[in-house]
Amino acid sequence: MATPPKLPGYIDEKAAVQRRLRRIEGQVRGLQRMVDQEQYCIQILDQVAAVTRALQAVAVELLDDHLGHCVRSAVESGGDDATDKLDEATAAIARLLRS
Amino acid sequence: MATPPKLPGYIDEKAAVQRRLRRIEGQVRGLQRMVDQEQYCIQILDQVAAVTRALQAVAVELLDDHLGHCVRSAVESGGDDATDKLDEATAAIARLLRS
Amino acid sequence: MATPPKLPGYIDEKAAVQRRLRRIEGQVRGLQRMVDQEQYCIQILDQVAAVTRALQAVAVELLDDHLGHCVRSAVESGGDDATDKLDEATAAIARLLRS
Amino acid sequence: MATPPKLPGYIDEKAAVQRRLRRIEGQVRGLQRMVDQEQYCIQILDQVAAVTRALQAVAVELLDDHLGHCVRSAVESGGDDATDKLDEATAAIARLLRS
Repeated sequence: MATPPKLPGYIDEKAAVQRRLRRIEGQVRGLQRMVDQEQYCIQILDQVAAVTRALQAVAVELLDDHLGHCVRSAVESGGDDATDKLDEATAAIARLLRS
Repeated sequence: MATPPKLPGYIDEKAAVQRRLRRIEGQVRGLQRMVDQEQYCIQILDQVAAVTRALQAVAVELLDDHLGHCVRSAVESGGDDATDKLDEATAAIARLLRS
Repeated sequence: MATPPKLPGYIDEKAAVQRRLRRIEGQVRGLQRMVDQEQYCIQILDQVAAVTRALQAVAVELLDDHLGHCVRSAVESGGDDATDKLDEATAAIARLLRS
Repeated sequence: MATPPKLPGYIDEKAAVQRRLRRIEGQVRGLQRMVDQEQYCIQILDQVAAVTRALQAVAVELLDDHLGHCVRSAVESGGDDATDKLDEATAAIARLLRS
């Protein structure tokens, strides 16, 4: 792994990221209630798709912050760490595309 | 929507589905802790990818139950409801592929 | 693998599936032209995303045909092959979700 | 759109990208042959999943080249174009995740 910066890229958006994650936690608890109430499979599947989209929106926000802060400042500083950070970002994007 | 059956397709797997959803809820709370501790973007992104995969595994289990029970029994009963259930299942799969 | 039926589920839609695949082949050749002309990465990436969506639309059409014909007639005939066909369909959907 | 650079990020990998795209074109023609021979739906679906993965591998290679060249050199030059390029890259990644 490339050297992590002292502060993560999302530091200025920390509260916004937490709000999104708490909403996702609420959606997952909503899924548990739907299963508990024995709601119809198709409705639950659509809600699972909605939670997946919400998670991907978090991923895009974190990537945006990561590229705009961690990767950007590594490139501005120059040197090997810039290359490491760029490779690491591509690898993380590849894992997201596979998920 | 096709007429939902009295019991959902996952009725025999209700406890297993709930266990998976509780584990996913725990993973989402784990993400909140990682953000709270200002962990590195890339580690959080990988954990987001892991939660997405866990959600897709729930979707596959629900689909398996839905096809094997709701769709199967509608086809066994015959008639229009079988066609509605098959169309509805394809549409739900299409939404999952898009998510 | 479950016993394949004599005729595939898409037999009535064979011409439509082929038209979609020829259009996708044209899109892939369009990508080659874009690379040959050294067009901008972002435009090529967007075109790659468009081809991926076109392929998924083919997958959804094939799945729709498969569920509505192969799986449906196996369930109507009853017996072990119905279960095999349902399991096989779920496994194929799981592989599509992972792709 | 941010100002495209004179040479695209994949310029040094142009031949490799073209080889991948020609292989994908061959896979799409292979799909047409499978449909022509009325092969089983499930085998065709698995081949569609394989082509989708091959396309995503091209996307990852193009992204890698784009981040490592176009975005990197925009950041090294500094100014508004760096911010535009970073925003544009995130937006392209978001579209790929949705595809």
